[in-house]
Amino acid sequence: MTETSLHTVIFQPGDIACEGIEHGANLLRVALLEGVHINASCGGTGACGKCRVAIEGNFEGGKSAKLPDEDYRAGLRLACRVRVMGDLTVTIPEESRMGDSAALTHERRPGPGRVLTPQDLDNLVSGWSVNPVVKKYALELDAPDQANNINDLDRVKLGLKAQHGIENASVDFHVIRDLPGTMRMQDWLVTVTVVETSRGPKVIQVTPDDLTGKDYSIVLDIGTTSIYAQLLDLNQGETAAQASEYNGQISFGEDVITRIVYSQKVGGRKKLQQAVVDTVGAVVDQVLEKAGVDRCQVSHMVAAGNTTMTHLLLGVNPKYIRIAPYVPAAAFLPPVRATSLGIDLCDHVHLYTFPCVSSYVGGDIVSGIIGSGVFQTDKITLYVDIGTNGEAVVGNREWLVATSCSAGPAFEGGGIKHGMRATRGAIEAVQIEPSTGEPHILTIGGKKPIGICGSGIIDAVAELVEAGILGQNGKFKEAAAGEWLRKNEDGQWEYVLTSGQYTAGGQDIVITEPDIDNLMRAKGAIFAGITTLLASVGMDMDVVEQVIIAGGFGKYLQVDRAAAIGLFPEMEPEKFTFVGNGSLLGARLVSFSKDMLAEAEQVARMMTNIELSDNQSFMDEYMAALFFPHTDMKYFPRMEKMLRKLG
Amino acid sequence: MTETSLHTVIFQPGDIACEGIEHGANLLRVALLEGVHINASCGGTGACGKCRVAIEGNFEGGKSAKLPDEDYRAGLRLACRVRVMGDLTVTIPEESRMGDSAALTHERRPGPGRVLTPQDLDNLVSGWSVNPVVKKYALELDAPDQANNINDLDRVKLGLKAQHGIENASVDFHVIRDLPGTMRMQDWLVTVTVVETSRGPKVIQVTPDDLTGKDYSIVLDIGTTSIYAQLLDLNQGETAAQASEYNGQISFGEDVITRIVYSQKVGGRKKLQQAVVDTVGAVVDQVLEKAGVDRCQVSHMVAAGNTTMTHLLLGVNPKYIRIAPYVPAAAFLPPVRATSLGIDLCDHVHLYTFPCVSSYVGGDIVSGIIGSGVFQTDKITLYVDIGTNGEAVVGNREWLVATSCSAGPAFEGGGIKHGMRATRGAIEAVQIEPSTGEPHILTIGGKKPIGICGSGIIDAVAELVEAGILGQNGKFKEAAAGEWLRKNEDGQWEYVLTSGQYTAGGQDIVITEPDIDNLMRAKGAIFAGITTLLASVGMDMDVVEQVIIAGGFGKYLQVDRAAAIGLFPEMEPEKFTFVGNGSLLGARLVSFSKDMLAEAEQVARMMTNIELSDNQSFMDEYMAALFFPHTDMKYFPRMEKMLRKLG
Repeated sequence: MTETSLHTVIFQPGDIACEGIEHGANLLRVALLEGVHINASCGGTGACGKCRVAIEGNFEGGKSAKLPDEDYRAGLRLACRVRVMGDLTVTIPEESRMGDSAALTHERRPGPGRVLTPQDLDNLVSGWSVNPVVKKYALELDAPDQANNINDLDRVKLGLKAQHGIENASVDFHVIRDLPGTMRMQDWLVTVTVVETSRGPKVIQVTPDDLTGKDYSIVLDIGTTSIYAQLLDLNQGETAAQASEYNGQISFGEDVITRIVYSQKVGGRKKLQQAVVDTVGAVVDQVLEKAGVDRCQVSHMVAAGNTTMTHLLLGVNPKYIRIAPYVPAAAFLPPVRATSLGIDLCDHVHLYTFPCVSSYVGGDIVSGIIGSGVFQTDKITLYVDIGTNGEAVVGNREWLVATSCSAGPAFEGGGIKHGMRATRGAIEAVQIEPSTGEPHILTIGGKKPIGICGSGIIDAVAELVEAGILGQNGKFKEAAAGEWLRKNEDGQWEYVLTSGQYTAGGQDIVITEPDIDNLMRAKGAIFAGITTLLASVGMDMDVVEQVIIAGGFGKYLQVDRAAAIGLFPEMEPEKFTFVGNGSLLGARLVSFSKDMLAEAEQVARMMTNIELSDNQSFMDEYMAALFFPHTDMKYFPRMEKMLRKLG
Repeated sequence: MTETSLHTVIFQPGDIACEGIEHGANLLRVALLEGVHINASCGGTGACGKCRVAIEGNFEGGKSAKLPDEDYRAGLRLACRVRVMGDLTVTIPEESRMGDSAALTHERRPGPGRVLTPQDLDNLVSGWSVNPVVKKYALELDAPDQANNINDLDRVKLGLKAQHGIENASVDFHVIRDLPGTMRMQDWLVTVTVVETSRGPKVIQVTPDDLTGKDYSIVLDIGTTSIYAQLLDLNQGETAAQASEYNGQISFGEDVITRIVYSQKVGGRKKLQQAVVDTVGAVVDQVLEKAGVDRCQVSHMVAAGNTTMTHLLLGVNPKYIRIAPYVPAAAFLPPVRATSLGIDLCDHVHLYTFPCVSSYVGGDIVSGIIGSGVFQTDKITLYVDIGTNGEAVVGNREWLVATSCSAGPAFEGGGIKHGMRATRGAIEAVQIEPSTGEPHILTIGGKKPIGICGSGIIDAVAELVEAGILGQNGKFKEAAAGEWLRKNEDGQWEYVLTSGQYTAGGQDIVITEPDIDNLMRAKGAIFAGITTLLASVGMDMDVVEQVIIAGGFGKYLQVDRAAAIGLFPEMEPEKFTFVGNGSLLGARLVSFSKDMLAEAEQVARMMTNIELSDNQSFMDEYMAALFFPHTDMKYFPRMEKMLRKLG
């Protein structure tokens, strides 16, 4: 992303200037993220035709069957269909505004926090260069003669020393069986693959010819729900392709606990391993095909996963991870031959897994600490990874404490009536007009709404509280009943986000009180985990100099909305950085650089695990956090002021 | 063998005292080995009834259907059926003597050289104790609790450090998969198997309970023809059982060259590997069954073989071993998981193979140098291993040079018309009465003669030369034709060792001129190899302070007979030691002691290979050695004197 591709959009009336807008951004999204209300009921599909605006400047799109010809000719466009291609001035006509014209002078949001570009992400960590743990070396050797008839293997070893300064390499036995034929195939020109181990260099492959020009690795984030893969070009130091798939283990259970239980059935562990290996195989196939890379050109793999996922991927018994005192089989697992797991790559390819800290602070967190640069910062940093489990780490380059709390799957759309993962068609942003209670929504991809994802739920609940529709205790206020807040057939209150006429399924998409209850428990667990973690080192929120949010949903998350529900305290948005998939970020670094691999091991060793289960102060913190945003408003001055206004 | 079980036998007439006779020895064998002639045509089966003697002292046996009752009552016994049980005086009546009564005053042989008892063999090498490279350790661990919930693997590692002082052990991945169940099975009491590698200790197995009381290894001599196995009790430091089988590869070719050729056919290498692995499996089964040891109690294996056998056992391509400049794939092969080869032992068991020096100086020779103590002696030693190939090593603790010469299989009975391996029924000793040319023979096990083995051929040819029946050029003297020297149907001369009436097959057993030719070339190659090897370091035979003879046939070989044909120079018999299977001896030591394993690697590194093919001085030496005993009589003064007497 170059400087020239960032634009400024000015909304009128009110002269609200939004800077740093990405080239090609959706105009309705820009408005919502900046707190500028434009009517929008269909999620951005053009179906409701409500978001008409007049635009000056360079843009694309804006047409829809719902926009009458005369309006189009009058210069109006649908904001949900407009892509920002330059600096714009956008005038919102009265009919597109909230019922109350105050909408456009709505108190400005504190800003979205820092969402990083791929280049920003690569610059989070400094002081490393591409120097992978597995490297290829070309050797031009002399043919043997009577004066020099040492064995083939020693000829390779002497060549490595003379031509590349590599001494005392050990040799994987698999290399030796066909070495004689290999060495003579291209007239004694060979490529030798050498891995750096903690006990010295080791030759793991010898092939004919000079093949050093093509050298790749595959990095994986093995999530409980999804598996992400990147193919890295080790010569260019860049990503050649990426892919993702749902973890094939999902059919055996949604969370790690049910998977561990399943693993104890006869043949269960084997089935779970096969399922995740099949998914890995699929994403490996995808990245290779996308990049047009031969699978023989892959030299190594790096995977980051939580402790249970790591155990199951390698076929290690996870039984005691879920039984107090929560003991994994191992924290550091040695590199494993990929083919031995059933992954279709060359025989010499080894899979490195990130070391874990404890049963519930896994390699994915260690990887995130590496990938986000926490391990080398002086600032006291709070790193939070929000998925099915929430993990939090506090510390800096000198010390790290970590914990995990089972937040439940609410932030991934689990346990929510119309919840879904953050994929196309998910309602990801919601605004509610305080004066009318009317919702305005935006879906991922501007598709017909299918359901609501984590950031949408957070937005919705925050807005419901701020609009006085939802009480701080998580119960709807009957007084607010009307077009959007209603009782369903079972006599339960629900809030309608969008009506069936606009949705993909033809049914209303709603938020129920049980949904809100699940969200409250999820955010309460994470907030309590953070405060307990800080207390364990005698600190509180005030000392935190930066917050790094990882997790698939973090990309869309609005800092002030998260604070409004009490997921995080209110802090300057500049302190927040959203890194997206933090564990994939760390896996990349470790794959590119053996120094980073050593750092990862160091991080896993130095990180102290704080166990929250059976921890009384966590339970107290948790109970106090079951309120929007919190029973103690110390960290929520803005909300306190707003709620006081509501009365 | 204790002092009290050695006896003295005095033969009369002539008062010939033979000391140091083993308890239970066969009386006819004692006479033959001591150069005392007693008539014996049937090989010691009692069938010819010629070897009647009168005995005073403690003995057993001596009866036969061929011994008339009146002779038995008169106190006569058949020497071939008598076992020496105490000091004896044996009177040989005139009819049992050679035609010429001078027989009993036959010039005494210089003695048999030193044949070692098992205890002697274990004492060849000093300064080692039982301390194997793979060891079991019992660990009593604390169960985890909230205060100490480190992962299972780290608990094992901390236990190893605290209870046995083993630090920084790496861990084989296979150990980890089921570690949680294993550790809890016997209430946190486990046995940990640790291997010492060049890069530090490595945990290769963890089992429940304390199993340190039973710990075994298996050592193998992988010969081109036969495979020998011993099961070693690592706690007791002794042999629990032994077994041997023909190498299953024999059906693919008799020698290493034909096997290498076969290995290059499609699927050939795999078939050869399977064949030798099957044989290894069979001897493993045998030693385990004989000793009643469970296969799970075996911790490691050590195998010594020549370079080609080592390659084929591990499935390594041997192609260029047979093509100039004779380059093996590797000299040092890493330990290989036994199960990966298809050997039915526990998964953690690794097979160590002895390092090789060159294509034709293999791990069996390195092993022999260890097992016979050459690597730690100050004496300049000649080590000769005679099999299908002859290998010779000269040196001491400070330097070693080695070579090999393809002697051909004559010493193992190959290429000899009635040749056979040294098994039951093989004629292993021959005497010929100079005045009549009559042969007297002894078979292994006193069984009906089936054929003739290496030591028998050497005896026969030496005696034929000394009796003036065979010329020094290897051609029979027509003048000696008679009852035993005759022309066969093809008009070729042959010497009859025993007539069909006494043999198992009912046919005469003979020695032909082509047989003698093969023997001459075999002994010529070995003698020339030894002299060329010595010359390569500027030495000659005179500097050799001791000679160690290894090889299956060495046990029966008479030093003076070997010198008579020119296989070795004439030397004091005290300088000769017969160690039998030298490579098995070394494999034992290496299995018992990791220090000896390190020594073996050191020996392989320090040994210099002298290549004889295309070596002109070897060719000259070889041509000069194609004579009985040699064209240059410098090293054969006794034979020179005797032949001068013959005229």
